[in-house]
Amino acid sequence: MSAAVSGWQITGHTRLFGILADPVTHVRTPMVFNAFFREHGIDAVLVPIEVPPDRLAALLDGLRAMTNLAGFVVTIPHKTAVAGLCDEISREGRLIGAVNTVRREHDGRLVGTMFDGVGFVAGLRRKGHDPRGRRVYLAGAGGAASAVAFALADAGVARLTLFNRTAAKAADLAARLRAAHPGVEVALGSADPSGHAIAINGTSLGLKPGDALPFDVARLGPDSVVAEVVMNPETTALLAAAAARGCPVHLGRHMIEEQIRLMADFIWA
Amino acid sequence: MSAAVSGWQITGHTRLFGILADPVTHVRTPMVFNAFFREHGIDAVLVPIEVPPDRLAALLDGLRAMTNLAGFVVTIPHKTAVAGLCDEISREGRLIGAVNTVRREHDGRLVGTMFDGVGFVAGLRRKGHDPRGRRVYLAGAGGAASAVAFALADAGVARLTLFNRTAAKAADLAARLRAAHPGVEVALGSADPSGHAIAINGTSLGLKPGDALPFDVARLGPDSVVAEVVMNPETTALLAAAAARGCPVHLGRHMIEEQIRLMADFIWA
Repeated sequence: MSAAVSGWQITGHTRLFGILADPVTHVRTPMVFNAFFREHGIDAVLVPIEVPPDRLAALLDGLRAMTNLAGFVVTIPHKTAVAGLCDEISREGRLIGAVNTVRREHDGRLVGTMFDGVGFVAGLRRKGHDPRGRRVYLAGAGGAASAVAFALADAGVARLTLFNRTAAKAADLAARLRAAHPGVEVALGSADPSGHAIAINGTSLGLKPGDALPFDVARLGPDSVVAEVVMNPETTALLAAAAARGCPVHLGRHMIEEQIRLMADFIWA
Repeated sequence: MSAAVSGWQITGHTRLFGILADPVTHVRTPMVFNAFFREHGIDAVLVPIEVPPDRLAALLDGLRAMTNLAGFVVTIPHKTAVAGLCDEISREGRLIGAVNTVRREHDGRLVGTMFDGVGFVAGLRRKGHDPRGRRVYLAGAGGAASAVAFALADAGVARLTLFNRTAAKAADLAARLRAAHPGVEVALGSADPSGHAIAINGTSLGLKPGDALPFDVARLGPDSVVAEVVMNPETTALLAAAAARGCPVHLGRHMIEEQIRLMADFIWA
């Protein structure tokens, strides 16, 4: 670690990490990772990389060419596409069909895996909302929602109800969950989350001002926990509506807070 | 500019810059640019990017795809190759056949130019070594040396003597200088720099421990200024030998110090 006025500076020896997103302005990952690097005396820096979906393949070829790149985090809307572009992906990544963490091997090969679901469930547990044996409702069937769904099934939920605007995607996710976890009851639901102890937004709704609510929070009683995968704004319209009803809320950032050690270990493995 | 514990942090809004090199560990550009960004309250960060020559085209395609990349600096050994890969280059870049600064346009096009020579001559002047009307010796005929040669000719040297291990490259550079600056005497020399008021290393010799000296400094009298383009180590073996003979020495870092405003203005133009 180099000395500097601020106690931390980027030199030619500093290893690179990225966070791939589009748009990238809302991401919290640089602050979280760079604070982690500083605290642990790791000479590395994570920077935002904005890339449109139609340029993703070219970007990954460019990242393969960067010999001082250690790896990168992937977020909306790239998690599914990056899974298809990696040279190798983990069992979790294949099951979910999406990755959020990619390691660059010394020969330039990109190896992807998915920690969103594991991190989300760890965050629920840390905040006292263990999903084991509970009825859980999940909106979304994309990369983040799939990861959360598989991790919830793995954590032993009593029932998992899926809702997605494009119903075929939810049905496909349900079929894959039932195949991998025959002991878990998986149902297809509507925008009405009533009858569930935990209701989770696994879509990107809430990221942009004026987004519709991902589900009808007015149908929930005050005992139901309402949880987010959206990290910015910290209090989405969904969480504000849930808090107004007296529901306990669970922030999107807890998902990434639990993942940082998993990601760092994977990339340096 | 975002607030942070250190007074400076990278967020999703931070604009990206790179320094392309191979190896990249020795570069000083991140420290120089990031200090400049901090001093001026500019929300941007410059990171090292190491890329081998055979992967340069793939890397540039990847950089074209990064919509939050403002531009990048180019150094050894990529200055000549990048000139051939840009979508557009300035008159200086075409004349010299190399670029050291590239701006990424909003549509992804890469526009290159070369500030090494202008920055080098500005550094000489600031340190009281104006080359106008002087006899100047220059070792090297690659990207950095060519840039320095054109800027010296532009600054009105009385005579410019070129020496390069591959003589054909020096002859080619001399022909291009004579065509662009018919009023300047351009000669081809040997490793002996005697008879010149200023002797300049424009090669990469001195970067690695054990490198040969680029020219025979023992032939210089104590009035001759010895100048470097190599920035790290700050005192190369050449400068140490020159200082031991009592010659005034001129550090490689003065070249980049003068260029930073030129580069920042060009990239934000």
